[in-house]
Amino acid sequence: MISPDVTGASNTNVPSVGPSRPKNIIIMIGDGMGPAYTTAYRYYKDNPETEEIEQTVFDRLLVGMSSTYPASVSGYVTDSAASATALATGFKSYNGAISVDIEKRPLPTLMEKAKSLGLATGIAVTSQVNHATPAAFLVHNESRNNYIDIAQAYIDTDADVILGGGQQYFPASLLTQFTEKGYQHITEFTQLDSITTPKVLGLFADVQLPWAINDNRSHKLSKMTQKAIDLLSQNQQGFVLLVEGSLIDWAGHSNDIATAMGEMDEFAAAIEVVEQFVRQSKDTLVVITADHNTGGLSVGANDKYEWKPEVLSRVKASPDEIANQAIANEQWQTVVTELIGFTPSDTELTALDNARLQGNEALTIALRKIIDVHSNTGWTSGGHTAVDVQVFSAGPGARLFGGHQDNTDIANKVFSLLPESAVKQ
Amino acid sequence: MISPDVTGASNTNVPSVGPSRPKNIIIMIGDGMGPAYTTAYRYYKDNPETEEIEQTVFDRLLVGMSSTYPASVSGYVTDSAASATALATGFKSYNGAISVDIEKRPLPTLMEKAKSLGLATGIAVTSQVNHATPAAFLVHNESRNNYIDIAQAYIDTDADVILGGGQQYFPASLLTQFTEKGYQHITEFTQLDSITTPKVLGLFADVQLPWAINDNRSHKLSKMTQKAIDLLSQNQQGFVLLVEGSLIDWAGHSNDIATAMGEMDEFAAAIEVVEQFVRQSKDTLVVITADHNTGGLSVGANDKYEWKPEVLSRVKASPDEIANQAIANEQWQTVVTELIGFTPSDTELTALDNARLQGNEALTIALRKIIDVHSNTGWTSGGHTAVDVQVFSAGPGARLFGGHQDNTDIANKVFSLLPESAVKQ
Ligand SMILES: [Zn+2]
Ligand SMILES: [Zn+2]
Repeated sequence: MISPDVTGASNTNVPSVGPSRPKNIIIMIGDGMGPAYTTAYRYYKDNPETEEIEQTVFDRLLVGMSSTYPASVSGYVTDSAASATALATGFKSYNGAISVDIEKRPLPTLMEKAKSLGLATGIAVTSQVNHATPAAFLVHNESRNNYIDIAQAYIDTDADVILGGGQQYFPASLLTQFTEKGYQHITEFTQLDSITTPKVLGLFADVQLPWAINDNRSHKLSKMTQKAIDLLSQNQQGFVLLVEGSLIDWAGHSNDIATAMGEMDEFAAAIEVVEQFVRQSKDTLVVITADHNTGGLSVGANDKYEWKPEVLSRVKASPDEIANQAIANEQWQTVVTELIGFTPSDTELTALDNARLQGNEALTIALRKIIDVHSNTGWTSGGHTAVDVQVFSAGPGARLFGGHQDNTDIANKVFSLLPESAVKQ
Repeated sequence: MISPDVTGASNTNVPSVGPSRPKNIIIMIGDGMGPAYTTAYRYYKDNPETEEIEQTVFDRLLVGMSSTYPASVSGYVTDSAASATALATGFKSYNGAISVDIEKRPLPTLMEKAKSLGLATGIAVTSQVNHATPAAFLVHNESRNNYIDIAQAYIDTDADVILGGGQQYFPASLLTQFTEKGYQHITEFTQLDSITTPKVLGLFADVQLPWAINDNRSHKLSKMTQKAIDLLSQNQQGFVLLVEGSLIDWAGHSNDIATAMGEMDEFAAAIEVVEQFVRQSKDTLVVITADHNTGGLSVGANDKYEWKPEVLSRVKASPDEIANQAIANEQWQTVVTELIGFTPSDTELTALDNARLQGNEALTIALRKIIDVHSNTGWTSGGHTAVDVQVFSAGPGARLFGGHQDNTDIANKVFSLLPESAVKQ
C-alpha cells in the first residue's frame, strides 16, 4: 500500500536532509536510445514463461525526460555531436559541432571544469574513443569528422582514463606523446587487468568494439566501466566519468533490432555496475540519458497488435556476421537457420538466396528485414528522430533530474553539483 | 541556479508536509498519445521566429512514465480497452475487455468505488461516450464492441456527468430511462451553458465529435471539462472525473499528423483548464497519461535529420475534409493548395488527380502522404505500439506518480488516494 502522506508539489525539487553534493559524477549516454529502445529491452529480457514482467535497471532508475533539439540553425532533429555538446557544456550548437558554439568558438566543458577543480576524469565507450559523444566532453572542434585532429587534441586533456576503440586514429607519433606523458597504452582487452593506476589509454579495436551479440556476452563495457571507476577513485578529490553505450545508435542506423538489443544489454549491464557502486559509495551521482533517438524504432508495426521479442532472443549473431558465414558456406540455408534461430519461409529463403548472390550487404539487409517481419518491429529512418529521451539517475542530487528538462539543463544541473569553487568561478 | 541541497533518493516517495489526500481526482487520458506526440506537439506550437522553444503543459506536468502491456494472453501491445481496464481497476486483462478479467468476471472500478464513498463521478470525452476508455471506467462488458449494451449499462452507473458523442447508441427508450432518473439530456453544444446542476447526459454527435482542426478552435473538450468540474464540484464530498482526448488515437490510426496535432491542441487546452482548477482548489489531484501509443509516429523520418512542424501549422482542414471539398469542386487544385497551405509539386498534383478520380478515401490518403513528405513525418502502423507512455500530474499526491510504473500501478495509487473508508473496505 502506498502512503498518501505526500505533498502536492509536482516537478518541484523540495530541499530535504541528505548529502549535499556528490563527490563523484558518472554520466552515462545510451547513444540513440529513445523510449522505444528501453521499452523493447524490457520485453526482450522478459521471461515469457512467467506472467509477471520484470523491471529493468532503466525502470528502477527513471526520473524524468529530456528534449534534444539542436541550435535552431539545425532544425529540431539533433545529431550526436550537437547533443553531446549540449550535455557537456549546457549550450545548444549546430549538428556536427564538438563543444563549439554556432560561431565555432570553444565552449567550456564539464570535463575541463572538473580538471580545473582537481578531479580525475575519464571516458569508457564502445565506439572509437574520439567519436562525437566522448569528443564533445573532452575537446573542441568545428567538426566531428576531424577524427585525427580530435585524437591529437586528446593529448592535452589530461584525462586519466581513456577506454574504447579507435586505434587507427592514433599514429605512432601520437602514442609516443601519450606514453611520454605517463599514459600506459594497451591494445588487448586482457591487458586491462594489469592496469592498477592511471593514466591509461586503452584502444581495443581499430574503430568500434565488436557487436555485443557476437562477443559471447563478455560485457566489455561493464569491465571498462568497473576499471575506470577503480582507477578514478584513487583521486581523493573525486572524479567525473563518461560512459557511452555507443553502438546502440549504430545498430539503430542499420535498423538492426537483434543487434540493437544486444547493445542495450551491454549498456544495461554497465549501468548495473555503476548502480552497485553508487549504492556502496553513497557519494556518487549517476545521470543516464540518451543523446537522441535513432531509426524511428517502433515496438510493434504493420497494423498488428504484437511484438515478438522471443524471436530476437534466439538470434545468435548479428545479421552482418550471419551474412559473412552464409556467404562463405555452400550449406548457407543451414547456417542461416541455425544462427537466426527460426526457419525462414520458402519465399524468404528465395529472397535470401537472391540477396546472397549480390553479396554481404544485400544479404545483411535481407536478414534484418526478415527478423523485423518475424518480430513485427518497425522503423521509419536510417537517421535520427526528435522524440524526447528519458533521464535516469541515482545518488546525491538525483532528484534534480526529475520531470521534464532540456539536454542543456542536464549539463547545467551537473555543473551546479560540482564542488563549490566551480559554482563560484 | 539550482540548489544542490537535495537528497540522493531517486524514485523514492519521501513523505513530507502538505495536504494528505485530494478531495477531487481528475484522470485525463490522451488516447494513443505516446512520447512522440507530446514531443511533436512542442515543436508544432513553437514560434519559429524565436530562438527559444516554449514549454508545453505536458512539459510543466511530467512526472514519470508507464508501461502499458495487457494480460499475457494478448502479448505486449495493448488496445484501449485492456489499458483502460488497467487504469480503471488496477488489473491486467485481455485486449477488448471492459473492466472484466481474463475469465470475463467484473473487476471493481475506480468510479464504482468513488460512488460507494459518496463522491460524484463524471466523464467528458471527444469520442462516443460509450467508447472503450470511458466504458471501462463506468461499466463491465466482455467486449468493447458491444456498444448498445454498454450504453444501456450506463443507466445503472449513477454517473453525474456524461459528456461527449454517441447519440446513435442511445435509443429513445433508453433516453427516457435517463430522463426519468433525473438526467437532463442535451444534444446541442450551446445547451451546455444552460445546465447548472447535475445530472446531465450531453450527446453532441451521432458518434465522435468533429475533428478539432475543422472546428474553428472551439475547444469543445475544454468547455465540457470546465462544465463537468463546475457540476461535480457541487458535491461536497468531492468527485472523480475522467477526461479523454479520444481522437488523438483516431488520427494516429489514420496516420494523419495534421489532424493529430489539432487533437493534441484540443487535449492540451483541456489540461490547462484542469491545471488552473488544481492551482485554485488546492485539494484536487490530476493524473494525466496515455493508454498506449498509436501509429508508430516518428518526429523525423526517411534518413533526413529534419521535421517541419510549420508545414502542419498551415494546414487549414483535415485531409478528409480537404478531400470532400476537392471532390465537390472542379477548381480542386486551388482548393487543395489553399487548404493544405503549400503548393504541391507537379508530381504530387498528378498523384492527387489520380486519387481524386478514385474518390474520397483515396484522395484523403494521398493528401496525408504529401503532408507527411513535406513535414518529414514517419509512421510504422495503422495500429498501436508498445512504447511506454508518459505520466503527468499535479496536486496532492502527484509525487506518487513519479518514476517508472505500470498502468495498473497508476490505478492502485489512485485507489489509495480515495477517502479513508475506501482503503479500509
Ligand atoms: Zn546516430
Ligand atoms: Zn487506438
